[in-house]
This record gives sequence, structure tokens and C-alpha cells, in this order.
Amino acid sequence: MRSKPTLDAWRARVDAFLDTRLPAAAEPPAVLHAAMRYAVLGDGKRLRPLLVYAAAAALGEPPRQGSPGGPGDPATADALDHAAAAVELVHAYSLVHDDLPAMDDDALRRGRPTLHVAFDEATAILAGDALQAEAFAVLAAAPAAPATVLAALRELARAAGSRGMCGGQAIDMAMTGQAQSPEALAAMHRMKTGALIEAAVVTGGLLRGAEGKVLDKLRRIGTLLGLGFQIKDDLLDAEADSATLGKTAGKDEAQGKSTYVTLLGTDGARARLDVVAAELDAALAAFAAQRSGGVAVDGDGQALADLAVLAVRRGR
Amino acid sequence: MRSKPTLDAWRARVDAFLDTRLPAAAEPPAVLHAAMRYAVLGDGKRLRPLLVYAAAAALGEPPRQGSPGGPGDPATADALDHAAAAVELVHAYSLVHDDLPAMDDDALRRGRPTLHVAFDEATAILAGDALQAEAFAVLAAAPAAPATVLAALRELARAAGSRGMCGGQAIDMAMTGQAQSPEALAAMHRMKTGALIEAAVVTGGLLRGAEGKVLDKLRRIGTLLGLGFQIKDDLLDAEADSATLGKTAGKDEAQGKSTYVTLLGTDGARARLDVVAAELDAALAAFAAQRSGGVAVDGDGQALADLAVLAVRRGR
Repeated sequence: MRSKPTLDAWRARVDAFLDTRLPAAAEPPAVLHAAMRYAVLGDGKRLRPLLVYAAAAALGEPPRQGSPGGPGDPATADALDHAAAAVELVHAYSLVHDDLPAMDDDALRRGRPTLHVAFDEATAILAGDALQAEAFAVLAAAPAAPATVLAALRELARAAGSRGMCGGQAIDMAMTGQAQSPEALAAMHRMKTGALIEAAVVTGGLLRGAEGKVLDKLRRIGTLLGLGFQIKDDLLDAEADSATLGKTAGKDEAQGKSTYVTLLGTDGARARLDVVAAELDAALAAFAAQRSGGVAVDGDGQALADLAVLAVRRGR
Repeated sequence: MRSKPTLDAWRARVDAFLDTRLPAAAEPPAVLHAAMRYAVLGDGKRLRPLLVYAAAAALGEPPRQGSPGGPGDPATADALDHAAAAVELVHAYSLVHDDLPAMDDDALRRGRPTLHVAFDEATAILAGDALQAEAFAVLAAAPAAPATVLAALRELARAAGSRGMCGGQAIDMAMTGQAQSPEALAAMHRMKTGALIEAAVVTGGLLRGAEGKVLDKLRRIGTLLGLGFQIKDDLLDAEADSATLGKTAGKDEAQGKSTYVTLLGTDGARARLDVVAAELDAALAAFAAQRSGGVAVDGDGQALADLAVLAVRRGR
């Protein structure tokens, strides 16, 4: 994977930023702050933050418009840190709440006890709530043009809300134990998982001035990437064991959840994933070919392409 | 109360705005959207939204700077609707989560079953989460100068997070069953209840261009108002019955929670409230006398003064 050093550097960058940004575990209320750090820091693929950086990188250097904002301007890289951290904070909070006993009731996440097991249920609810507030706080503090930051914030808030992630989780829970069509499953996942992945790509684009057709093409990449990611996730859940997966394996089927594997079988799900991967390749090519209107696409799209491969082809 | 017609008009205004802004109860996922509307609409004092409007009104007409922004400009009144709705959405979500079995475990709120009783626990968690996202979405969409909107958003996010409301709730739960000093109680309440009330006043001010000493004086009003509100709340909890209170009465003592009444006795809590009320009067007078630096205070402060009285002197 050609962009691996770049991806590793971005991952280290957002990890360091999150570590600095989150209140210290000793700051009162210490239990709450320790829980927030537990939920966010440590192992994590950081797919969503990496997509923020990668989408921005694919657009090239920041536009030169007065000062600051020239190529390599640290303020602009800093703004990406804020957006990258914000999407990861929303993701992290959603995992904490999804794992709660009243929700998916899971005890294992990223190879460790889930937050309500390691701490308690009230702390898990509150830590999730506080992480969501922190997501918007950190994005609202991004050092970039206020109108741009607000556009990114509206994108993130929509993706996180009842027409996005929270709505998808509600539909998922209502679906459980009932037969579904692959179309209904895709619609649910587009909200539950896809919306935030899409928002990560779009946010990275917005912060580099993308608009119009360029933004549309980036959004299409995000949509497909989210869909492929989910199909792959279902395949991994069906195939892997808990130790390598880092979360409870085989749980979807045990809970009576529809997945691409339960609906289409393993071979059918693999075939569906191949179709999505091909569409994703086409979307990346269409984005790279885009030259008219809005911002020119003249950056390095390698990281974005590599992340697309990683999302749909990742191993256990 | 001289400003009653004004307050009633603002309350109707924010209610109508919230009704329009929240997704219809029939929009999928219908259960989630019905739950969100249940949590927000219907009876409610709307103290926090009223404080947004009242703080803005106390500063006078919006500054004339180019177009739009002249006196009575609907865009500016619209921006206040967005901020008023945002603080109410944060408040409403916090009530839903605080009532959960793992938190305060309450069955009655505003005279009706709490959300997790009327729906279920998972829906209550998700509806709260989605309402918080919607709070930031609606504020980020406020039709005002982007830098001003971002300043208001940072204020709200800080008030909602681990150094504000969520942190206060965490401390409150950790305190339960343990003896407290009045100072520790005040510090907890300043975070749990005070931060959001303060943010409502400050946000209204920010949207009318308040800064520097004017903003400081507004914040002081918000802080005292939040403190007085809480002492009064503790007195009402100790004195009222559930039917008139609209929530479970006498619950603080039953749960072993420290309150101003359990710490100071009813007479002591009343005496403390009198002191806060006097400080609040002084803070309102200091704000009205403020003329130097930042925005001139030349608006109608009657509504803000009336809300202060209402918060500390309200009946059951």
C-alpha cells in the first residue's frame, strides 16, 4: 500500500491531537474524563479521521487567498486535525452507546471490555453524551474560515442525527429478528454507518474548498466506501473469531440481525462487495478526472484510493 | 409581571419553530422521531429559550452594519429562534438521559411518563443522542454572521460537555448518598444546571454582538440565575407534591441526594435564595448601567429582569 507511511503519520497525528484535546483523566470529574479517554484513545483503525485527511490531500494544496491559507500553511493542517478528531469523537461515542445493555448489549470492543463493563452504565451514557458535545466543540474551534467550519459542522450534525447515524441505529434495532430485503438493509446501513463515513470524506473536502460537482463526486466516494465497509464488516463478523476481531464475533446471527451474509450468503455477500468495489474504483477515477467548476482536483489521491481498498479488502 | 405578553409571544415563537424544525412523527424512523417530539414539544417553561431572547432584547436592536442587520431585520430574529431552539434541545435531551434507569431512574416528567417509560430505553438513549445532534445542527444553520454563530456554538458545546452539564451530572451521581458541603453542592449545580442557563444568556448576547465587559456582566447574570433557579428547585422538590410539580416529588431525599434543603434546612435554603436574589438584582443593575466598551446596553431589560424573578420566585 503506497500511502502507508502517510496514513501512519496521519493516524499518529490525530491520536496525538485527541490525547491533547481531551481533558486529563485526573481532571474532575475524573471518572467521566477517564471514561471518555478510554472510549477514544488506544487501538482504533481511525478510518474516519484518515478519510478527512485523505479527501483534503486529494484536492491538493489549500487555495491561496490572502493570509493565512497558503500551501503548507499550518493553520489549514490544524483545521483538518479538528475535523478528523470531531468525526472520530462522534464515532467513538456511538460505539459506547450502541454497546449499552438496552441497545446491542455487547461486552467486548476493540479487544477490551466495553465502557459500561469497564466503568458502569451511567458513566457510559454520560461519557457518550460528553464526547458528542466535544465533537462539535472541537470542530467549532477549527482554525479556518468560519463559513467553511459551519458548513462542515452542519454536515457532521446531519450525519450524526436522526436522519443519519442515530436513525440508522433505531432502524437496525427495529429490524432485528425480522426478515429484510437487501435494499432495506442497505438503506439502514447507509444511515447507521455510511452517513458518518460520507461526512468524513465530505468534511475533508469542504475544508479544502470543494464545492459543486467536486463535492458531489467526493460524496459518492464516501457513500460507496461506507457501503463496502459494511459488507466487509458483515463478512468479517461471520468468518472471524472474537480474539482476532476485537469484538464479539458471530453476534449478528446470534441476535437475529439481518446482515449481507444472512441475506445473501457468504458467496453472495462477496459478489456484492466486488460490485461495490468496482463502483468505488469508477467513482475514484471520475473524481480524479474532474477538472471543471469548483476546486481543481490536483492533489495526491493515493491515500484516498488506498483507504477505499483498505475498507473493502481489509483482513481480520 | 410587566413583560408577560412578550414572554408568552417568545414562548409561542420557539414552540412553533421547534415544531417545524423537528422531523414529523411520521417520517421514518417514525418511533425515533415521535420520541424526539415527545421529549421536546408540549408543556415546558422554556426558561432557557426565553433567556436567549431576553438577553438579546436587553442589548437593544441589532447593530446596523451593512445589510442585513438593521433594526427589526427578520434574519436576526430568526437567528435567535435557532439559538433558542438549540439550548432547549440540549436541555430536553439531558432530561431524557437523566431520567434513564441507570441514571436517576425517574418515571414522571412534566406531568407525563418519562420517555423510556412511554417508549423504551433504547429509544430514549437514541432520541437523546439525536436531539443533541439536532441542537448543534439548528444552531449551525442560524442566519447570522458565521463567526458569531461559531462563538455561540462553542459556548453551547462547552456548557453541554464534560466541563459543564454532563460533568455536573456525573458529579451529582458520584455525590449521591454522601455528605456534602454547600460549596461542593454549588459547584456541582453550576455545572449541571447553571452552565446551560448561563450559555442561554450568553448566546443571546453573542448574537446581538455583546463582547468584553458587557458579555461578562451578562454571564454573571446567567450564573446567578442558574444558582437561584436550583435553590428554588430544591425548595419546590421538598415542599410540593408530584401532581403540582409534574415530576416525582420528594425524590431527592428518598435517593439520598444532597440538596440545599437537606444541607441547610428549609429556612436556611430560603435565606440562601434571598442572598442570591439580591446579588442577581445587583448584577442586573450593573448590566443596565454598563455603557463603555463593546455594545451599548440600550435595549429593554424588563424581560430579563422578569425572568430572573421568575426563576427564583416561581411557585409550584
